[in-house]
Amino acid sequence: MDKATIIVFSGDMDRVMAAFNIAVGAASSGMEVTMLFTFWGLNVLRKDRTGSRAGGMMQKMLTWMNRGGTENLPMSRFNMSGMGTWMMKKLMKRYSMPSVKELYTTAKQLGVKMIACTITMGVMGIGKEDLVDDIDEFAGVITYIKDARESKINLFI
Amino acid sequence: MDKATIIVFSGDMDRVMAAFNIAVGAASSGMEVTMLFTFWGLNVLRKDRTGSRAGGMMQKMLTWMNRGGTENLPMSRFNMSGMGTWMMKKLMKRYSMPSVKELYTTAKQLGVKMIACTITMGVMGIGKEDLVDDIDEFAGVITYIKDARESKINLFI
Amino acid sequence: MDKATIIVFSGDMDRVMAAFNIAVGAASSGMEVTMLFTFWGLNVLRKDRTGSRAGGMMQKMLTWMNRGGTENLPMSRFNMSGMGTWMMKKLMKRYSMPSVKELYTTAKQLGVKMIACTITMGVMGIGKEDLVDDIDEFAGVITYIKDARESKINLFI
Repeated sequence: MDKATIIVFSGDMDRVMAAFNIAVGAASSGMEVTMLFTFWGLNVLRKDRTGSRAGGMMQKMLTWMNRGGTENLPMSRFNMSGMGTWMMKKLMKRYSMPSVKELYTTAKQLGVKMIACTITMGVMGIGKEDLVDDIDEFAGVITYIKDARESKINLFI
Repeated sequence: MDKATIIVFSGDMDRVMAAFNIAVGAASSGMEVTMLFTFWGLNVLRKDRTGSRAGGMMQKMLTWMNRGGTENLPMSRFNMSGMGTWMMKKLMKRYSMPSVKELYTTAKQLGVKMIACTITMGVMGIGKEDLVDDIDEFAGVITYIKDARESKINLFI
Repeated sequence: MDKATIIVFSGDMDRVMAAFNIAVGAASSGMEVTMLFTFWGLNVLRKDRTGSRAGGMMQKMLTWMNRGGTENLPMSRFNMSGMGTWMMKKLMKRYSMPSVKELYTTAKQLGVKMIACTITMGVMGIGKEDLVDDIDEFAGVITYIKDARESKINLFI
């Protein structure tokens, strides 16, 4: 079975949507897909609006600024304090494009494997309890390399 | 014939230039190259300075802010209301580096296949009439996966 | 020997760290790794705080704004005039995560090949004398394509 492995580094709504569209497309085409969420991409896996309970003051500041949850991702361009993101969501709805939350559910149903990067979780002050419950694996770069070197499609988003 | 498939997600001049340089380099090296333009990357394919005739008020706002055409791409860094971009263009000229417009023409001559992503065209309020005439294909993610899983080089830019 | 080829286009500290973590992970897993530094990624290879001696006024302005050296990379998000970057560095230290400088040294020790992109060096006003001494190769896109088409993992960061 052909494999595809996608690193989701970005937490921008538009980039995350592109990542999920590709993942869902690949899984629908019969590929075995892995998504590795790292750095800002971890926001996708965070429960809505939770601040972290773990970590010191700097991490609390970071998690406060860096609000997680699939509903709270900013855009990479024209975010305009959320206005651009709000507009984009409206347009997506009108064109019956699935939201990030819906794409996440679809991806899970199609068997896409979701991995949270343990290395960056520590630094960003994100604990396992801050993340959604249906993550398949907590792992680091060595696991990623093992998947990626066997993959037909490798992307860094 | 070895294949290379590049997703051009970004509309930043520097990233787009990198994408075209790689595409032209791969085609010159005898590879079969496909570029898929999606999200902000669609700006590369837009006719200069056209506002969209399609879509409602929000899309008109989006297309007005998000000016297209190869001559109007901003930089990812130090754009400074266009000043950084202007400087970069001057420097590129002095070093006889081809512009995005010239790279596009060269890529077409070398047989690089240009695909516009239909999913994002709708959301961004971009119609076929807003894009240049020599696009090879209008397609979505399933077409991309078909190309990408057979490619030796896959990049997301 | 399986190959991995990573284009480091970005000069943002977080993205550069991701690039090095992947490179080090791949090399540790027995892969032959090449990193090609281009555009803002060239900042990683620049000697600390040097302004360029080469080039005219515009390049001097660009190099002044675009300070290089592994210790001076900004973050892609929440940089806040360096405050976010300072916080991130503190957190990385506390979690004993290696800095970019340390990752660079480790990568070199593991035999990762470092290539500086000659095309962009000219435009950015960066001369060979501005870069660190242990770069393995100065090359352009054709060399990249040769490496990349033989690689199991290709990433654009």
